[in-house]
Amino acid sequence: MSKVSIIMGSKSDLPVAEKAISILKKFDVSFDIDVASAHRTPHRVEELVTKSDADVFIAIAGLSAALPGVIASFTTKPVIGVPVSGEINFDALLSIVQMPPGIPVAAVGMNRGDNAATLAVEMLAISDASLRSKLADYRKEQADKVIADSEKVKADAGC
Amino acid sequence: MSKVSIIMGSKSDLPVAEKAISILKKFDVSFDIDVASAHRTPHRVEELVTKSDADVFIAIAGLSAALPGVIASFTTKPVIGVPVSGEINFDALLSIVQMPPGIPVAAVGMNRGDNAATLAVEMLAISDASLRSKLADYRKEQADKVIADSEKVKADAGC
Amino acid sequence: MSKVSIIMGSKSDLPVAEKAISILKKFDVSFDIDVASAHRTPHRVEELVTKSDADVFIAIAGLSAALPGVIASFTTKPVIGVPVSGEINFDALLSIVQMPPGIPVAAVGMNRGDNAATLAVEMLAISDASLRSKLADYRKEQADKVIADSEKVKADAGC
Amino acid sequence: MSKVSIIMGSKSDLPVAEKAISILKKFDVSFDIDVASAHRTPHRVEELVTKSDADVFIAIAGLSAALPGVIASFTTKPVIGVPVSGEINFDALLSIVQMPPGIPVAAVGMNRGDNAATLAVEMLAISDASLRSKLADYRKEQADKVIADSEKVKADAGC
Amino acid sequence: MSKVSIIMGSKSDLPVAEKAISILKKFDVSFDIDVASAHRTPHRVEELVTKSDADVFIAIAGLSAALPGVIASFTTKPVIGVPVSGEINFDALLSIVQMPPGIPVAAVGMNRGDNAATLAVEMLAISDASLRSKLADYRKEQADKVIADSEKVKADAGC
Amino acid sequence: MSKVSIIMGSKSDLPVAEKAISILKKFDVSFDIDVASAHRTPHRVEELVTKSDADVFIAIAGLSAALPGVIASFTTKPVIGVPVSGEINFDALLSIVQMPPGIPVAAVGMNRGDNAATLAVEMLAISDASLRSKLADYRKEQADKVIADSEKVKADAGC
Amino acid sequence: MSKVSIIMGSKSDLPVAEKAISILKKFDVSFDIDVASAHRTPHRVEELVTKSDADVFIAIAGLSAALPGVIASFTTKPVIGVPVSGEINFDALLSIVQMPPGIPVAAVGMNRGDNAATLAVEMLAISDASLRSKLADYRKEQADKVIADSEKVKADAGC
Amino acid sequence: MSKVSIIMGSKSDLPVAEKAISILKKFDVSFDIDVASAHRTPHRVEELVTKSDADVFIAIAGLSAALPGVIASFTTKPVIGVPVSGEINFDALLSIVQMPPGIPVAAVGMNRGDNAATLAVEMLAISDASLRSKLADYRKEQADKVIADSEKVKADAGC
Repeated sequence: MSKVSIIMGSKSDLPVAEKAISILKKFDVSFDIDVASAHRTPHRVEELVTKSDADVFIAIAGLSAALPGVIASFTTKPVIGVPVSGEINFDALLSIVQMPPGIPVAAVGMNRGDNAATLAVEMLAISDASLRSKLADYRKEQADKVIADSEKVKADAGC
Repeated sequence: MSKVSIIMGSKSDLPVAEKAISILKKFDVSFDIDVASAHRTPHRVEELVTKSDADVFIAIAGLSAALPGVIASFTTKPVIGVPVSGEINFDALLSIVQMPPGIPVAAVGMNRGDNAATLAVEMLAISDASLRSKLADYRKEQADKVIADSEKVKADAGC
Repeated sequence: MSKVSIIMGSKSDLPVAEKAISILKKFDVSFDIDVASAHRTPHRVEELVTKSDADVFIAIAGLSAALPGVIASFTTKPVIGVPVSGEINFDALLSIVQMPPGIPVAAVGMNRGDNAATLAVEMLAISDASLRSKLADYRKEQADKVIADSEKVKADAGC
Repeated sequence: MSKVSIIMGSKSDLPVAEKAISILKKFDVSFDIDVASAHRTPHRVEELVTKSDADVFIAIAGLSAALPGVIASFTTKPVIGVPVSGEINFDALLSIVQMPPGIPVAAVGMNRGDNAATLAVEMLAISDASLRSKLADYRKEQADKVIADSEKVKADAGC
Repeated sequence: MSKVSIIMGSKSDLPVAEKAISILKKFDVSFDIDVASAHRTPHRVEELVTKSDADVFIAIAGLSAALPGVIASFTTKPVIGVPVSGEINFDALLSIVQMPPGIPVAAVGMNRGDNAATLAVEMLAISDASLRSKLADYRKEQADKVIADSEKVKADAGC
Repeated sequence: MSKVSIIMGSKSDLPVAEKAISILKKFDVSFDIDVASAHRTPHRVEELVTKSDADVFIAIAGLSAALPGVIASFTTKPVIGVPVSGEINFDALLSIVQMPPGIPVAAVGMNRGDNAATLAVEMLAISDASLRSKLADYRKEQADKVIADSEKVKADAGC
Repeated sequence: MSKVSIIMGSKSDLPVAEKAISILKKFDVSFDIDVASAHRTPHRVEELVTKSDADVFIAIAGLSAALPGVIASFTTKPVIGVPVSGEINFDALLSIVQMPPGIPVAAVGMNRGDNAATLAVEMLAISDASLRSKLADYRKEQADKVIADSEKVKADAGC
Repeated sequence: MSKVSIIMGSKSDLPVAEKAISILKKFDVSFDIDVASAHRTPHRVEELVTKSDADVFIAIAGLSAALPGVIASFTTKPVIGVPVSGEINFDALLSIVQMPPGIPVAAVGMNRGDNAATLAVEMLAISDASLRSKLADYRKEQADKVIADSEKVKADAGC
């Protein structure tokens, strides 16, 4: 049983998916991962979505990037869409974010598999206090990294 | 039995569909017309496409405009996509034209329901000499209109 | 006690907020609404966020649209950002969606207050079966509307 | 006698043309290939088009990309335009897709010579049952590849 | 006998052409005006260009705006292209300016029929001292207008 | 005590910051440098700004680039924003420049840390005659470089 | 003697200039206002700049918007550029902000004459404690307005 | 005495200038070449322009690309502007082409120094029959190259 289902439109989206996997592992959130194309394997997308016991879907796609919206058409669970950059960066971003009324997709930034996973964890944390606590730790970790970076930069600049 | 199936993503796309209807009627090409949303009624899109006896599909959609690609995922018949303009014009255009390898959509210009229908007629005319002849007449008609416009403009300018 | 906190960057964003309110009322989800500017009232934003008992934030903003990201900087609860259109539509959309790693914002489409609210309901429904059931009803309602529209369009076209 | 005529605006467009050739060979569809520039050799373009016995034209061009539209001005057979990427990607795409009413061009995605050829095959298949059957096989092949990719990705991720 | 030939792609471009006419009349430069579509009347474009005794061509077009480039393909006389604004402003501008090596078009700003005509006069003035003198007067006129505007604005502001 | 405070959103912005440092050193203007993220360390940004004795802030950020605006929300001292280029260049530029009324940020060009520092010096020079004199020298230096470049180019071209 | 010099490229930019004037009057900062075109009256621009005793220049321009950069070429005082919106909004914004190294212009948002003036006041306030105090009051005024708006919105929504 | 004056905004624009030089040499058109920055050396630009005996100016510039317009402000001779590509390609193109009424610049494509020179030759050829004849030869040369390329491509493809 998985909490998050990651679906990529193409195997070439794997580097973006790996950023998501890395975050989900850090938070000990179970996940499943599949390649399924909205255009080449429409029934497979539907089957993956309707049979899944995940609470949140992460859909990763480039080009016309119909995958997140098509997943959303088969479920009312939250769907997070990650646009993958290509020759025309706006294509995937606009396809994912500009959904019609009634069928939302939650878009994150270009190639931001990491933020898709963090957002998924935030959604699960609504009803999971242990995840909320881990999210707070993660924020602290990020802040500490900024402070350490700052001290190094200051020292190097002689300030 | 219809030669062309026009599917709109939303009733609000009707003005663009009417440009297509007007051309198909001019060429006496039978057609069917439906509203079906890739996101709100995915099974209906599949059913319309797989049950249709049309030779060509015209899909009209705005915003993330997944409809033409989703229709193409259910058929190997030619699918013509018409982007409908909105607050961000590039959204529908890029969603429609930037299809992944293997599942083409034939994109026409923004709101160009007329050109979608003309392109559909051109496809049907590959195996229909009578349509080829009507297309030649239509071209002549357009050229004559340009010449008439030119004479009027010249006269008004006193050239 | 409110489930969703709607924060607008400016009173002029009210028409977009009203689309969100209408959906939340339909789902009987309690909400709070405030105007708070990331740039003019930074402490007020922090106070609203940290004192809120909401599970999800909806941030509505135009122009440089820092509000969703600033809200996200003060909480690990999910933040949904709604870009508001203006003279340069890409400004708010890109500001909202292009968040750095670690601090996600869930972007929805331009002026899509309705989808922001639906997405918020989907998040709450992860742990609320009654909302899941209402979401399924809402989907059916939307599909029925598409079918009714289609029948009307077909009849008018004489198909 | 060739079914498809591929015309490139410049020899530098050859890599995109080769994607089209590869698909046409796979489907055993005869084709001809030429370099002809709408701007440098206008009469040659006209001669190639009017003397051709092809049923479909594929025009490949970058920059101002007038070639597909100019070919369309000399024939009522379907013309498929393939934009070639360059320093400003939108130039070729917009030039190709934004045709005036009456003279359609079927645009495919950036550098998508493969999809142009697949679309050409789909058009020929309207009156050729053997091509229809090959197209169905090609779709299955693509779907199988997605499934194989998915299994590999799943295994690698340990899901 | 005309010095400048103005060719519009469509009668709807007339308001832009009228700005050009107004400037040419001011400079007493003879001109001819025609409507001719690169896509609907390709032979007419060629005939107008090759039979013309004009020294400079002004081509006005919107959408895919092939007209200036097609005119340039039939002559080595200077061709000035005026993009006409539409739903996607970049389409005509990029189609006109992004010509391949060897076949230049001189692009002016969006809807700038006036500047196209002024540029044509500047070209003719290379070998016409009387036009050079008129151009100098025109510049002075423009500068005087700026100064008069400035005085009015200053007075109104109480500076 | 520092005249200018440079704040980067991420350590990866250092190459842009170094262009600023180099200019400030040339003008003997004291500065401080820190890494602080509007999204990961909001309180740190506030603390740096409110405790600083600098007269001008330079904020360097990419992606959604909220940093310059957030700094401006905590001070009425001039804030100069430097957009850092990334996969979508418009994101940082539009986020920085499109500030709402009342809270200005002074945007400079993409990656132009040097111009941010020069602008900061110009602001300080309003009340510092010695800096005004150095700025005049710097302009002369730049002009001399252009002239030297020109002579070299002319010579190489044999003009 | 004026602290701020406002120069518009064209009388049509007056509505944007008026937003600047209104802010400068509120802060009792003396100003001068002129119309001067970088392209039509280059010597007038130079004369206005070099004869001015202002500490800061505000340059307002649309289209190719060379004015702010040209003013900056004649002075080392800070120059604030305000892009004026038109048919292609990016033109003025990019022309103003993308200055070469060494000659900065401080760009503010589209049509933001008000923010240009506020930024000018912030620059003058570096050496003027009374202006600093007025800026603090102005910020408070803005924050109070946000709070009042929020209370009204809350009351209207029944929260 | 030179027919064409090439002015680059920066030495880094030399590769684009070299394309222009190569064409001018081919046509035996005398030219001069200089580096002069509209922003760093405004008086030098004015002096170069007003002292020049050239009939046509070619201005090459990137970024905010004020140079072509500033040259045009000092002369009524034709000015051809060549945008140089950079991190944001639209910046130079829009700055160059979007000139205000009365002061035209003839824009050619991105980095198209060759087309700028060809356009300059076309302008000079209005009153120079020998250049007209050379231009006709050049066109033939280009067409021959296209035909040779086509034969090679055909042979390689086995058509």
